[in-house]
Amino acid sequence: MISIVPVEGLPEILDGDDLAALIAERADLRGGDVVVVAQKAVSKAEGRVVRLAEVEPSDEARLLAGNEDPRRFEVILRESKRIVRTRPPLVIAETRQGFVCASAGVDSSNAPEAGMVVLLPEDPDESAARVRRGLYELTGADVGVIVSDSFGRPWRQGTTDVAIGLSGIRPLLDLEGERDSAGYELHATVIAIADELAGAAELVLGKTAGIPAAVIRGVDARGVGSGRDLVMPAERDLFR
Amino acid sequence: MISIVPVEGLPEILDGDDLAALIAERADLRGGDVVVVAQKAVSKAEGRVVRLAEVEPSDEARLLAGNEDPRRFEVILRESKRIVRTRPPLVIAETRQGFVCASAGVDSSNAPEAGMVVLLPEDPDESAARVRRGLYELTGADVGVIVSDSFGRPWRQGTTDVAIGLSGIRPLLDLEGERDSAGYELHATVIAIADELAGAAELVLGKTAGIPAAVIRGVDARGVGSGRDLVMPAERDLFR
Repeated sequence: MISIVPVEGLPEILDGDDLAALIAERADLRGGDVVVVAQKAVSKAEGRVVRLAEVEPSDEARLLAGNEDPRRFEVILRESKRIVRTRPPLVIAETRQGFVCASAGVDSSNAPEAGMVVLLPEDPDESAARVRRGLYELTGADVGVIVSDSFGRPWRQGTTDVAIGLSGIRPLLDLEGERDSAGYELHATVIAIADELAGAAELVLGKTAGIPAAVIRGVDARGVGSGRDLVMPAERDLFR
Repeated sequence: MISIVPVEGLPEILDGDDLAALIAERADLRGGDVVVVAQKAVSKAEGRVVRLAEVEPSDEARLLAGNEDPRRFEVILRESKRIVRTRPPLVIAETRQGFVCASAGVDSSNAPEAGMVVLLPEDPDESAARVRRGLYELTGADVGVIVSDSFGRPWRQGTTDVAIGLSGIRPLLDLEGERDSAGYELHATVIAIADELAGAAELVLGKTAGIPAAVIRGVDARGVGSGRDLVMPAERDLFR
């Protein structure tokens, strides 16, 4: 059995907050648990926030923006390595961290104040590792940590949460070489368990409920890896 | 808190099996629970299996197949409305049911016998509704049912399970009009909860463990809808 427990009662996260300490006070953790923390909370704690009043939009940003605020598009361009597809005001970009997602992860909902946008963490794996180290020091529990974000998907409606950073977690479960119940080898069956864990946690996080973290127990996802292991290499990607 | 419990001890599913009866005997169900059933089990119970020895490949199938078995590609073509992208031996197709996925959902792993492939259910919503009606008759519990399948994704490595059919489930949670904790409206925040439920269940299903069903408790996903509500309409899809 798997359980997913929301970490309740967290205050609004501010720049400089110690997320591990805030979570450790409110969660009962055991070794092997997976702690999923919403990217928005991580980014705010890391001060990854931009005040649009301080942004001067370039011509390219004005062009992308159409009738929308060009300063937001300027921030999107700064966070992007490459624009993958646009249909104003929608922009799909490859972020500097290597993720392909809408608006390069730049988001104005749940920002600390009006006129602010929240960016992805500079290095989401390092963010996850920092929370993990903090939780270990405070609780003695060796947990895995996932930093999650809501990504849209080609072909399918709605967002699902995926893992953008992780620590102490095996991101992919490769069943190659394992055999199914009839004895046939399961080729090319690689399951993105870190993404499934992030999506499962989203079911209790709730965008409006102010619950930025959850604890999943009962899944053996221990291992090593990076959030970037979940990104399809460009040369294997038919849609980039 | 959410719990996810595997339905253990199910036999190998055969053509004509009553999935609802097999699950009802082994699961403790309550109203509001979500029962996730793997597509492979549903398809086998519905006889959606093709013996490759009985398939005559067309020229188009031979062309697509390259060095692989052209009969498998013939079945893929029959299950497809349209081929979206190919890079032999990989075929991404839009299935007759409207899903965009690898091999039009035609799969040879976990087939009943060698030389057989398993197809998607003809109508996965109707499959879900049938299991739901059966569970209600046998247990009195009004549960939601999701038929799940493992789909690959552009841009990301590995598969996650998604909902291809459902009954008694609200597939999408639309937060438009709701406000975040700072009072700002959350635009365009639609969460694919049925896909997140399917992915969460996958964490206990296990491709090799022979567990084709799981019960999720603690998520209010009651509602109406179709697995097709999770498919991005072609005119809004930037990648089709």
